[in-house]
Amino acid sequence: MTPSEKALVPFVSVDHMMQLIHQIGLEPMLRGIADYIEADFHRWELFDKTPRVASHSTEGVIELMPTSDGEVYGFKYVNGHPKNTKEGLQTVTAFGLLADVATGYPVLLSEMTMLTALRTAATSAMVAKHLAPKGSDTMAMIGNGAQSEFQTLAMKAICGLKSVRLYDVDPAATRKCAANLAAHGIEVVSCTSPEEAIQSAQILTTCTADKQYATILSDNMVGSGVHINAIGGDCPGKTELAAGILQRSDIFVEYPPQTRIEGEIQQLDDDHPVIEFWQVVTGQHQGRTSDRQITLFDSVGFAIEDFSALRYVRDQLEQTGLYHALDLLADPDDPRDLFGMLQRAAPN
Amino acid sequence: MTPSEKALVPFVSVDHMMQLIHQIGLEPMLRGIADYIEADFHRWELFDKTPRVASHSTEGVIELMPTSDGEVYGFKYVNGHPKNTKEGLQTVTAFGLLADVATGYPVLLSEMTMLTALRTAATSAMVAKHLAPKGSDTMAMIGNGAQSEFQTLAMKAICGLKSVRLYDVDPAATRKCAANLAAHGIEVVSCTSPEEAIQSAQILTTCTADKQYATILSDNMVGSGVHINAIGGDCPGKTELAAGILQRSDIFVEYPPQTRIEGEIQQLDDDHPVIEFWQVVTGQHQGRTSDRQITLFDSVGFAIEDFSALRYVRDQLEQTGLYHALDLLADPDDPRDLFGMLQRAAPN
Repeated sequence: MTPSEKALVPFVSVDHMMQLIHQIGLEPMLRGIADYIEADFHRWELFDKTPRVASHSTEGVIELMPTSDGEVYGFKYVNGHPKNTKEGLQTVTAFGLLADVATGYPVLLSEMTMLTALRTAATSAMVAKHLAPKGSDTMAMIGNGAQSEFQTLAMKAICGLKSVRLYDVDPAATRKCAANLAAHGIEVVSCTSPEEAIQSAQILTTCTADKQYATILSDNMVGSGVHINAIGGDCPGKTELAAGILQRSDIFVEYPPQTRIEGEIQQLDDDHPVIEFWQVVTGQHQGRTSDRQITLFDSVGFAIEDFSALRYVRDQLEQTGLYHALDLLADPDDPRDLFGMLQRAAPN
Repeated sequence: MTPSEKALVPFVSVDHMMQLIHQIGLEPMLRGIADYIEADFHRWELFDKTPRVASHSTEGVIELMPTSDGEVYGFKYVNGHPKNTKEGLQTVTAFGLLADVATGYPVLLSEMTMLTALRTAATSAMVAKHLAPKGSDTMAMIGNGAQSEFQTLAMKAICGLKSVRLYDVDPAATRKCAANLAAHGIEVVSCTSPEEAIQSAQILTTCTADKQYATILSDNMVGSGVHINAIGGDCPGKTELAAGILQRSDIFVEYPPQTRIEGEIQQLDDDHPVIEFWQVVTGQHQGRTSDRQITLFDSVGFAIEDFSALRYVRDQLEQTGLYHALDLLADPDDPRDLFGMLQRAAPN
């Protein structure tokens, strides 16, 4: 039995995703995804928004992140298990789906471990483009794990970053990151302390994985006139910044009901003022207003960013052919005759 | 590049699911799934439970149904689009996933359009085994769509049903159902009215698809001493039974917070007494207590039933080999080196 066309869902495997990135080029693809994300932030109000649905355990968390723009529905499955690396597993793995709202039929299934790395970096850089001080060309990258190279190259591709200053508690991670970035047209400076890493940097990115209240940046380390891109504080009980920094910053977030639970601002009162970043994109709210201001993007990752990244990938499929057709949906000739379809599939 | 074993997730396609059903036999598989569901109802209290996460549109609904027993996490994606049949599409399509709670890594991806039909029928029959009058051998099957044959054969396999009385507003659906059931060792009586269908039946199953408040069974049609298996009223604004029937029935439900929104009891006050069916399985609550009682299973489908069905399928994989290995997860040698994995995949 050959499944009908309606039964087949395009599936982008990890191998196909990597081929896609190489075919388009990593930096052009980061720019492309950032454009899709910015476009969806422009129409933020029309999306169905809900905090992600999290299932917490002692080892980590498994989350479903759904959203819809009324025509297309999307969701991502993603886990976060900090101890996985000790067993040779990824901290974060993910896959995602788009479906047609009018019929409920899936139209794309895709790996998203790789794609999440791209969309997280593209989001950070798109936000930094709006908020970082004019002429920012140096970033401190604190935490040199799986996200660090993507963050760096997105900042290069989208904000014109020229130099990155690396620091990690584990020097091996810094060596890995520096080696990976060697041939990518950006100055790489390996540092031995966070204080050294943030010297002369206008953009401070924190992206560490410990599931605890940590103080990666203490209050006295951060001067005025910087943009902080705080990535790693993204679940309850997990933060990276001293509360004093938050008190001195203008705080920009994706979706307040989720960020107040998961972001750096879980350390603050529930009514502490925050700015929804989409309002900066649409011009309803000012972004950076002075050279001395500290802007903080308290990023936890939101479903709409995954939706945008999946839309981008879907739009590349026809031209590249980089997908398999997956026999995911039962599609009998007569839709009421699922049983007949099963009977006709019986071996002779 | 060959993906590592950790990167591969067993995937059961529609074709493999149909082969699995034929290899095991439909009725033995329905009994097997019912046993897994009953076992999970026994340990109901230890599951993470949440009402499904629904995205409603004018055309239908897309839902995510997650749950976890602390060791294994599962979720189902399922849509419900009543108008789909007019376009030659399924009203309901679905797929599901199991993952390891300790690592967050998916361990099974499976089609669930076919499997949902089996789990819904297996649940109905497992419940009827506990609640229907002793010696029940005749069922009225009102609504002869995609679920009708599975409901009938599950009641045969699990409750000893000998005769089914079919009715649908569309006689073509009844003809289809009767033809499909012809060679399955059960008496099939096609009826031209719901009143005729329920004559002499001890089990009344309603399973229609209109997304509206409908009265498939009116109050004066239903006498004492029957078990009503109400399947079709399963989302807000969609019911099948007259409220008067509910007032005269002992009502058994899966998960009250979900059923009060989606089930027949959305017609009743929020504090109307209902019995959680798992308490009947564990012996904490009586099921049927008299011959004259009307028992009503107000079934909307719950995540734990999908979890059980996926567990059953997973336990068949090793012996049958009926799956593909899907390259769904990025798994670099060094988990912090996702970027290095991408670079090494570059074409020469």
